[in-house]
Amino acid sequence: MPTYQAPTRDMQFIVNELLELSNQTHLAGMEDVSSDLAGSLIEESGKFASEVIAPLNQSGDRQGATHHPDGSVTLPDGFKEAYNALREAGWSTLVQPQRYGGQGLPHALGMAVDEFLSGANQAFAMLPGLTVGAAAAISATGSDQLKDLYLPRLISGQWSGTMNLTEPQCGTDLGLIRTKAEPQADGTFTITGTKIFISGGEHDATENIIHLVLAKTPGAPEGTKGISLFVVPKILVDGNGTLGEANNVSCGSIEEKMGIHASPTCVMNYDGARGWMVGEENKGLAAMFIMMNSARLHVGVQGLGQAEAAFQNGVAYAKDRRQGRALTGPAEPGEPADPIIVHPDVRRMLMDAKAFTEGMRALSIWTAFQIDIAERSPDEKAREAAQDLIELLTPVIKGYGTDRGYAVATDMQQVLGGHGYVVEWGMEQFVRDARITMIYEGANGIQAMDLCGRKLAMHGGRAIRSFFALVDAECADIPDDARYATIAASLKRANGDLKTATMWFMQNAMGNPNNLGSGAYHYMTMMGITSLALMWLRMAKIAAIRLADGEGDKAFYEAKLTTAQYFAQNALVDVGALRRKLEAGSSAVMALPPDSFSFA
Amino acid sequence: MPTYQAPTRDMQFIVNELLELSNQTHLAGMEDVSSDLAGSLIEESGKFASEVIAPLNQSGDRQGATHHPDGSVTLPDGFKEAYNALREAGWSTLVQPQRYGGQGLPHALGMAVDEFLSGANQAFAMLPGLTVGAAAAISATGSDQLKDLYLPRLISGQWSGTMNLTEPQCGTDLGLIRTKAEPQADGTFTITGTKIFISGGEHDATENIIHLVLAKTPGAPEGTKGISLFVVPKILVDGNGTLGEANNVSCGSIEEKMGIHASPTCVMNYDGARGWMVGEENKGLAAMFIMMNSARLHVGVQGLGQAEAAFQNGVAYAKDRRQGRALTGPAEPGEPADPIIVHPDVRRMLMDAKAFTEGMRALSIWTAFQIDIAERSPDEKAREAAQDLIELLTPVIKGYGTDRGYAVATDMQQVLGGHGYVVEWGMEQFVRDARITMIYEGANGIQAMDLCGRKLAMHGGRAIRSFFALVDAECADIPDDARYATIAASLKRANGDLKTATMWFMQNAMGNPNNLGSGAYHYMTMMGITSLALMWLRMAKIAAIRLADGEGDKAFYEAKLTTAQYFAQNALVDVGALRRKLEAGSSAVMALPPDSFSFA
Repeated sequence: MPTYQAPTRDMQFIVNELLELSNQTHLAGMEDVSSDLAGSLIEESGKFASEVIAPLNQSGDRQGATHHPDGSVTLPDGFKEAYNALREAGWSTLVQPQRYGGQGLPHALGMAVDEFLSGANQAFAMLPGLTVGAAAAISATGSDQLKDLYLPRLISGQWSGTMNLTEPQCGTDLGLIRTKAEPQADGTFTITGTKIFISGGEHDATENIIHLVLAKTPGAPEGTKGISLFVVPKILVDGNGTLGEANNVSCGSIEEKMGIHASPTCVMNYDGARGWMVGEENKGLAAMFIMMNSARLHVGVQGLGQAEAAFQNGVAYAKDRRQGRALTGPAEPGEPADPIIVHPDVRRMLMDAKAFTEGMRALSIWTAFQIDIAERSPDEKAREAAQDLIELLTPVIKGYGTDRGYAVATDMQQVLGGHGYVVEWGMEQFVRDARITMIYEGANGIQAMDLCGRKLAMHGGRAIRSFFALVDAECADIPDDARYATIAASLKRANGDLKTATMWFMQNAMGNPNNLGSGAYHYMTMMGITSLALMWLRMAKIAAIRLADGEGDKAFYEAKLTTAQYFAQNALVDVGALRRKLEAGSSAVMALPPDSFSFA
Repeated sequence: MPTYQAPTRDMQFIVNELLELSNQTHLAGMEDVSSDLAGSLIEESGKFASEVIAPLNQSGDRQGATHHPDGSVTLPDGFKEAYNALREAGWSTLVQPQRYGGQGLPHALGMAVDEFLSGANQAFAMLPGLTVGAAAAISATGSDQLKDLYLPRLISGQWSGTMNLTEPQCGTDLGLIRTKAEPQADGTFTITGTKIFISGGEHDATENIIHLVLAKTPGAPEGTKGISLFVVPKILVDGNGTLGEANNVSCGSIEEKMGIHASPTCVMNYDGARGWMVGEENKGLAAMFIMMNSARLHVGVQGLGQAEAAFQNGVAYAKDRRQGRALTGPAEPGEPADPIIVHPDVRRMLMDAKAFTEGMRALSIWTAFQIDIAERSPDEKAREAAQDLIELLTPVIKGYGTDRGYAVATDMQQVLGGHGYVVEWGMEQFVRDARITMIYEGANGIQAMDLCGRKLAMHGGRAIRSFFALVDAECADIPDDARYATIAASLKRANGDLKTATMWFMQNAMGNPNNLGSGAYHYMTMMGITSLALMWLRMAKIAAIRLADGEGDKAFYEAKLTTAQYFAQNALVDVGALRRKLEAGSSAVMALPPDSFSFA
């Protein structure tokens, strides 16, 4: 049976040493965020995730959500109670605005909690996650009336929320949406259509479910310019939030899926349901994308969460399981065999996992901190720079983070050999659950196009230029320290490759956009590796200082230096190869007629 | 619902054009293998796999094998009938010796059939596959009496076979085996112990099951030098093969697994079961390894099979599903959206899949043909060279083939977006089934160590030197043809990287074997890419000739040239990066104390 222990030690390091969150008093409302407060929030939320949520992960997968003949859906045993415990503890309201009942704490801390919950039980964590997303959509463009009615109840978790985008004929291409919204005399709309893949569309954990639905009003422009956003409650409510009669919306079925079995993926039928428009007519997609960008960051962290959970169990097994002898001679001659952690190839996988999880943790928390800067800094330039970084890195964290999260979960399953394939040991669930993160909230290929097609060009390339400058600055100011000379030199080279690739796009994608399309995924991966390396260089510098100071926890800081070096030697070297793939362009990619792919 | 069509067109190309199997009349017993015979075997076996076996793949996964309270196990509906149909059609006896009822046909053809069966239904194909393996173990070292009794019935499929190596405390490290074999007065042995992960250990498709069991005789030497091999039938038989009473062996339970649900993975309890020694006492492991090496080739082909099945469904979806528009403008302006095969990133995944499946098919069939040469050539040098290649390439085909097979299945699942995650569409099963191929018959890390620790050094490096020479020769003799200049140049460079890496091992692994251990996996991957590229260059040359000759099927040959170029641009470039990882050595890999991996 797998276990999960929230990685609070590493999180403390990131929040208090890498970000120095308690020193960010120039940010409005962060004057009271002491390192003690941050530390205790990390420890307490970690304890909650490890002790209350994680124990339901495997049982939730086995039992799954259940769709009943009357259309109702029940979550696995214990989920409702755990959800109520989460609400009571307040872990879902941490970063929400105080005006609507939240605690107004920094996103850096909210993202930490988010990793713990996702790592403990991804299917469970989706429910509060989606609710926060629905609140964000209403918050972005909704009227004060809608905000006052829905936000307090969504933020407190009294009601949950969903996002309804996908229909059978369209997922990525929302211009093809067919769900209709007919205006009524009272200013409301009648929503009719079918939405699929709706996570948490129906369940028994909350008294009401608030659906955010994309639909088209009569005579709306074709394509994405004619989509509006509506709030459609499962149970109709009056202006005071008192529950009334059921709305005309029902869950037709739930999908049988590879993983996240405890999260019901619903087919939602809107059969003349009553809805309220959020924001302006035909501007629904913009509001949805505000929410989606935030959701994408969180999905990247889900990938990290599964990798971390798998990593912990991989390490435990590698220290416990005895097979064979160290290549350099028996490590424990008194035992019949050595623990498999002595084998270099097992360590290769564990080091890959360690370098990814710790690097991605630093990157995601650091990026969440950029949200805090963008929202709270008194300096307009600082806000702008932070916002640039958030937009640039969101597709990278989602795409690269989930690709690697899945790969690490697969590797950790490999560490367990045959036991990794057996359900009882729990490793295969990490792989199955992690797999969805590469697909939902925009498949990773979409993330790559978002990065290369939109974010690079944004404000005349301002964001990517700032990123390059940031990396160059970090590499320029390198003390004469052999312990991180390798990573600094490799990072500088990777940054150069990334610049060259960016230039290649500028020179070759204008004339043939397929050159952008065929290279986008490679670019996203290059950017992911480089971003993690930036974090590793910073972490290595801090570790070197702590060791020089002779402060405690020597093993922790030494491991940071070793892992930084490992990442330089084993991940950063891929950046050059990726650049060459990108520069090969699209000719071989696009050459084949569709019927020439498979001659079977 | 997914479909599978055996890739017979490509197989015809490999067998008849790449190998020119009908021109190999200098090989004993291959005089009658005409291209017509080979062609019709390919078509007929393909039809059988596609029409009889493939339709049971998804239903078999859903229903799974069932363990009953009395210890019996039933296969999913239709499996027994399909197994009998396979026996009747003779597809499992193709390459078996005529003396024991086989057809004595070349392994090149047997491997073709093997790919089709595995691609159609991996869990099903395991049953005849394991039976062939058990026959091979008896064949290698068994007495004539054992051979005459068991081989005809195993080869015909009347009885099935299993391999019993793993025990709860040992998988990779067979020196830790505890199962005991007590000699009896009549020359038989009494076998007592528990074996786990025994595929097909119990089922209802055959009247008897012949277990090949590793066990230790009293006073046997410690470790792997004290292991003997026994044949232990489920039902005891007399010298004529007449079934008698049940042996003391039973299936205690079957594992619940990530995939291959239709293949029962059994805990086998030997409770004083009667067994017969195969070969010499304490020499059991050698016989088992003869069989295992053959099994490893077949597992590589299983990885290919799942990749091919997933690829076909990925292509079909990409041609059918409409989302968005081509970056260069609408491809089909009359439709609401273009098929997603217009998108470069979808094509990137499809081209990766095409380049892998066709390249790996060529490599596996070509390697199987080396077995034919090793067994049939009148030229001793040719036999030796072929045997060297088989031994060298077996871990590569198993390790690299299954790594990439899983990656391709995952990518093809990605092509389907959300639908790829839903059970009904069948893509996630390909991923779950493919996953085991990286683990069983020696986890891929073990393959890497077999390659680098044993095969490179074999006969003073003779095999790897021959491989280098083979690649150099293929690259040296390049006509001035731009259509494969890229792959030839890249392959030459990759071969150089591989030579350099080999030299690095020679210089750095003697003093510190961890340098071999930490680089072995990278070396295996380099070798896999280089081997596939060798096949791609050969295929490109043939395609260019056919196109120059103006022979039919222009689209097929043009696709070969394009895909060869794609492989050069997108796979071969990784070889240099892998070399650099390898040359970084083991210091960062081995530096951390075990307790420094995870501080959670």
